[in-house]
Amino acid sequence: MTDRLRFAPIPDRLPPTVPFTGPETLERRTGRAFAARLGANENGFGPSPRAVRAMADAAAQIWKYADPDSHDLRQALAAHHGIAPENIMIGEGIDGLLGLLVRLAVTPGDSVVTSEGAYPTFNFHVAGYGGLLSRVPYLNDAEDVDALVDRATETGARLVYLANPDNPMGSWHPAARIQAMIAALPPGALLVLDEAYADFAPPEAIPEIDPEDDRVIRFRTFSKACGMAGARVGYAIGPARLIAGFDRIRNHFGMNRSAQIGALAALTDQDWLRETVARVRGAREQIGAIAAANGLVALPSATNFVAVDCGQDGAFARRVLESLAAQGIFVRMPGVTPLDRCIRVSCGPKAELDLFGAALPKALHIARQA
Amino acid sequence: MTDRLRFAPIPDRLPPTVPFTGPETLERRTGRAFAARLGANENGFGPSPRAVRAMADAAAQIWKYADPDSHDLRQALAAHHGIAPENIMIGEGIDGLLGLLVRLAVTPGDSVVTSEGAYPTFNFHVAGYGGLLSRVPYLNDAEDVDALVDRATETGARLVYLANPDNPMGSWHPAARIQAMIAALPPGALLVLDEAYADFAPPEAIPEIDPEDDRVIRFRTFSKACGMAGARVGYAIGPARLIAGFDRIRNHFGMNRSAQIGALAALTDQDWLRETVARVRGAREQIGAIAAANGLVALPSATNFVAVDCGQDGAFARRVLESLAAQGIFVRMPGVTPLDRCIRVSCGPKAELDLFGAALPKALHIARQA
Repeated sequence: MTDRLRFAPIPDRLPPTVPFTGPETLERRTGRAFAARLGANENGFGPSPRAVRAMADAAAQIWKYADPDSHDLRQALAAHHGIAPENIMIGEGIDGLLGLLVRLAVTPGDSVVTSEGAYPTFNFHVAGYGGLLSRVPYLNDAEDVDALVDRATETGARLVYLANPDNPMGSWHPAARIQAMIAALPPGALLVLDEAYADFAPPEAIPEIDPEDDRVIRFRTFSKACGMAGARVGYAIGPARLIAGFDRIRNHFGMNRSAQIGALAALTDQDWLRETVARVRGAREQIGAIAAANGLVALPSATNFVAVDCGQDGAFARRVLESLAAQGIFVRMPGVTPLDRCIRVSCGPKAELDLFGAALPKALHIARQA
Repeated sequence: MTDRLRFAPIPDRLPPTVPFTGPETLERRTGRAFAARLGANENGFGPSPRAVRAMADAAAQIWKYADPDSHDLRQALAAHHGIAPENIMIGEGIDGLLGLLVRLAVTPGDSVVTSEGAYPTFNFHVAGYGGLLSRVPYLNDAEDVDALVDRATETGARLVYLANPDNPMGSWHPAARIQAMIAALPPGALLVLDEAYADFAPPEAIPEIDPEDDRVIRFRTFSKACGMAGARVGYAIGPARLIAGFDRIRNHFGMNRSAQIGALAALTDQDWLRETVARVRGAREQIGAIAAANGLVALPSATNFVAVDCGQDGAFARRVLESLAAQGIFVRMPGVTPLDRCIRVSCGPKAELDLFGAALPKALHIARQA
């Protein structure tokens, strides 16, 4: 590295790795397209037709920048949640907003607590801004809220990450448990409550929204239940003073204009959302039935994916996953023991899950022979 | 600010201000929509119909995340420029990529040099990552390349920003002058060469691309000549080792999927691009004629906008701009003296420029009465 191309100290210490390999990269490696795209917790039931129409109609107007305030969408979300627009920040997906939050809150060297095996992109951002990650193990395939609080207290953590419902295991905690966790947080710690999968969860999993609670910032998205992952529209809900902080650092003209318009249309179609949630429930049952038919256990899920316990270790599950990929089925798996005994199958239309069901016996057979 | 909501030191010192107020915000303030949108250097001639069709067709597939490698677009751009894909990084507009570059290269306290009155969003990023901005005045309404190099040498600058052609004045330097500037850069300084407006410039303004030159990183965009500002697709061209650095910190799944597909389609329609450039040339002439008819001087421009010298000081030009806004015409103006004697009018279809032409005499009349 020449002097001119040197990196600043924090990025200089970062690995060249990426949080996730995209399915397109895997397809290019093998030269074959996946027949079933069930690995990224995308929602194959698709977006509301109203959102599709709005985005298609908006295409010719893409010469205009998006409204940097996302005013209309923010107003509509505020009305939807019964909170003030000042408590909402729209951004390029939860991923983008998590990065901004870490940048805003974390001084290099600050402690940040998460679970061992939880969302890698959050960890990517923490490392990327020089935070010191501290990880606690899952307990019974769920994030261990008591251990998270304890670790936060021990380390004087600035941020504590919790996804409820959880990714990659699909488990969830009741709202009362989350509330107790918030009450037990040490001073100075902010709960990063990732609710990307909230729409799929039972109502009792989701704490009531108190946007001015200075102990928690919540994240929601149009990527999952609304089926708009490729649009990149997420939002944070939190105290107005914290939300205003995003304006100091965010890419103000970073939103795609059609995505903004599409999200607004999607929000008006709550019937579609309800139908999607019902379809996802059906897909979870189908995945459970496929697992059972193969002698495997599907873990309970409050999300649009199911962790299927392959019954052996991570190496075994990896072989199952690789054989599925070779048969054209894209799924992913947790990265750490003991979660990695599972493969994670996203909910999708029946035809794609049928392909998964057809491929699984061979994948298990091959995995058992190794 | 409670302890929990405190910001990290760098964002804590940042102002709550934003680089630009969007036209929608101005419209909401007055309660009236602009009749002519000529302020943000958007391209009202619009995107290629091929791109529009591709984006409209892609809308229903928005449930899929975009390819995080932007592989197909990167390959196509590499072929277009005759360089390797490893020399190209796609991102959410030049704005987003500039932020990543500053984060990658600038250690808090590093000197960064730009021109007084040049692109505010670059400055926003430099401040946002703790760089120390040093600004040199324009010379004859152009960025002063010698002064930039001198200041970079004096301050041991890490980055030197130059837009060629320039925004907000529309001026340009010949390629040989840029090459000489690059050769004169002090050790350790990287030239940030913003070529957002390159497609509108005479060929002799654009240096040949030598992507492995470790002294320069260039930025291009689909926002201007391709008429896709709202899509957020820009790219950086630079040494492979520097380009790879972006992977350490970027939001890998941050691209909008339809935008990626639309940009690829736009790139295949070079005829449309050529027609757009011709239309923009015609619009520049129309703006020049309007200025002349009002006794004003339109500055020469190699971009899709024209700085119109209102012949007095910044306060006067501000009054012209405000009266234009009151008449439904959105334009912007440079922020610093002496550039702020001008208003900056974006090129657009004849009908919109006609509205500008119709409103200007009254605006000048009102400004002169104050």
